[in-house]
Order: sequence, then C-alpha cells, then structure tokens
Amino acid sequence: MAYRVPALDNLIEQWERLPGIGHKTAVRLAFSLLSMSDEQSRRFVDAIVDAKKRIHECEICCNLTDGEQCTVCAAENRDESVICVVEEPQDVIAFERMREYHGTYHVLHGTISPMNGVGPEQLRIKQLLTRVANTDVSEVIMATNPTVEGEATAMYLSKLLKPFEIKVTRLAYGIPVGGDLEYADEVTLSRSLEGRSEL
Amino acid sequence: MAYRVPALDNLIEQWERLPGIGHKTAVRLAFSLLSMSDEQSRRFVDAIVDAKKRIHECEICCNLTDGEQCTVCAAENRDESVICVVEEPQDVIAFERMREYHGTYHVLHGTISPMNGVGPEQLRIKQLLTRVANTDVSEVIMATNPTVEGEATAMYLSKLLKPFEIKVTRLAYGIPVGGDLEYADEVTLSRSLEGRSEL
Repeated sequence: MAYRVPALDNLIEQWERLPGIGHKTAVRLAFSLLSMSDEQSRRFVDAIVDAKKRIHECEICCNLTDGEQCTVCAAENRDESVICVVEEPQDVIAFERMREYHGTYHVLHGTISPMNGVGPEQLRIKQLLTRVANTDVSEVIMATNPTVEGEATAMYLSKLLKPFEIKVTRLAYGIPVGGDLEYADEVTLSRSLEGRSEL
Repeated sequence: MAYRVPALDNLIEQWERLPGIGHKTAVRLAFSLLSMSDEQSRRFVDAIVDAKKRIHECEICCNLTDGEQCTVCAAENRDESVICVVEEPQDVIAFERMREYHGTYHVLHGTISPMNGVGPEQLRIKQLLTRVANTDVSEVIMATNPTVEGEATAMYLSKLLKPFEIKVTRLAYGIPVGGDLEYADEVTLSRSLEGRSEL
C-alpha cells in the first residue's frame, strides 16, 4: 500500500532494501524517523555519512578500521605468525569476545559462491597470499562458516597455501556446548564422532 | 562489545535508538550499510533528509503529507461531514486499505498518557475542535486503539465534543474475524456479547 506521499514512499522503499527489513518494519522505522526531532535525525544521518567516509579496510588484514591498521594489527601483544581467516568483520568480534585467541585475523569479506556470482577475485585472497609470502607465518586457521560455501572457500585457500608449506588448520566441528544430542543433525553428530578425543 | 572503531560504534548506537532494533540487528544493519556502494548509501541518506524536509502535517487533518493538504482532504469525493479520529498516520492507511470508508480523518499523533508525560495539549485536539466548530460535521468516529490510553483519549474527546451536539461513535469491539472463541480474552468476549446484534 503506497502512502501517495512520494518522499515517504521513497523513504520506506529505501528502508526495505536493508537485509531482514520487511515492509511493516520499514514503515515502522520510517515513521519513527519522521517523529524524531530534527537534531536526532541529523545525528542518525551524520553517523551513516561519517562511518561511510571514515571506515575502510585495514591495510594488513582487511578488517574494518578508521585508521591505517585495525586495532588487532596495530596491537603489540598479538602473535603475527598465526592468522585466523574469517568471512566477515563480525566474525572477528566473535573471536575477540572469547578473549583466548592472541593471533591475528584475515577478513575475506565473503565466500566463494558461484551461485551468487562471487569468485575468488572478489575476496581478499590476494592480500592473504601476499601477507603469507612476506611475513613469517607459522599457522593459518580456517575459520570460515561451516556452510557449503565456507567449506569450499577453506578448501580452495588451503590448496593455494600449500606451496608455502605452513600449517593450515580448520576449526573443529561438533555438538555445541549446552546443546542437546537429540536435536543435533546427522552431519554435525557424525563430524563430532569423527573428531572425538580421549578423556 | 564495542568495535573500538568510534565511527562504527557511533553508527551502531544510532541504529539501536530506533524502536524494535536490538544490538544484534543494529550491528547487522550497520555492517550492511557499510557494505553498500556509496551510491546506495547516499540514496538511503538522501531519502531520510528529503522526507524530514518535505513531510509535515496536513493543515486540515494533521495526517502526514508533502503538500498543504493530504490526499484524503484534497480529494473531492470524500464526505467531509464524517471525521474518523485515529492515533497515528499508519491507522489512516489501515482504514484506506479497507476501501469502504469515504469520510475524512483526524490524526491525533498519540494518545493521552500521563505515564509517558503526554497530555491533551501535545495531541492535535485543538485542531479537531476548530475543525468541528468551523465545518458542518455530522459524525465523529472514535477509532483510537482499544487500549487503556486509547479508551481514555476517546472518552476525553467525546466529552469535549458534547457541546457541539454531533453524533460521536466508537468502533465496535468483538472477536476478530477468523479468530477462535477459545483463545479470546474475557474482556473482548464480554464486549462482543454486549455488542451482539440480531441475525
């Protein structure tokens, strides 16, 4: 249902373009923006413009940053010989939340996905290879998502890294802590069995 | 978890201020905006700035419009003697979707809610009274939401409208079409019984 007010219809349409925002949510958000004070909506718009202007990729690991290097690459206490390869900047945050990993990251910004027209050249693979070639790297941990695309990307990368003769590892699969065996899918359970360790 | 990139943290914080947007959604939306092309994000920002600049209240019914009058008030085939009083502009759309109502509207932009510090003076009540006083109105339909605040506002308005000696009506309560008696709450069922009609 169009509101027959072009500026409003356009605003709703722009909201709908965001991922996970359906028509009803777009309408709610558009109206909430209109009901904001001018000061509040200016702050919202400024935050977007400012972030788009300042934030770019770290020159080393391709994570998002507003400086030349991201906070992890710029930190002095991180082990630069270990690189954890993740799909998205959000994944870095998940790892950092754990507070147990002290190596560095490499953000691919996606996975190889021919279905969506994403080939290796769209990802930050060249940067990873340059990095491995030029720094003393002892291990690359593949931490792409456990999906078909994530797996394929990890396999592809491990082949590319073979000539460098460094250790390439993959995150363990298994039942999530606090999970219930009854509801675990067959593939996860089978991977969990394969990867069993001695007590 | 802060990203330690001020422009990004600020962007996420601004998203979180929107109603119904929690931290995780705010993060997702902020990243999706960053991954947009400059052209796309510019269109998004322009839509907000443009809507804030152009959209204001209709001089007659206080509905949102980009002209002097909203499309309903400007239309020639609407019955100006019937005014349907609603809380928000979205409610007008709900009515228009029905395609059965041919009168006009009056948008209060909220309800009287002392808990939230909203008194009658914050609503478009003065505009409604002026309208009733100056035009030939035969009926005012109270279509505020069936909540405590909506009820209270409808009661308050009906008292204010008493001196004008016009018909003031309220939308019917009852079980929703397609609903199940088993799950109807007591108040709705009791209202539905009260308002029963002959077959």
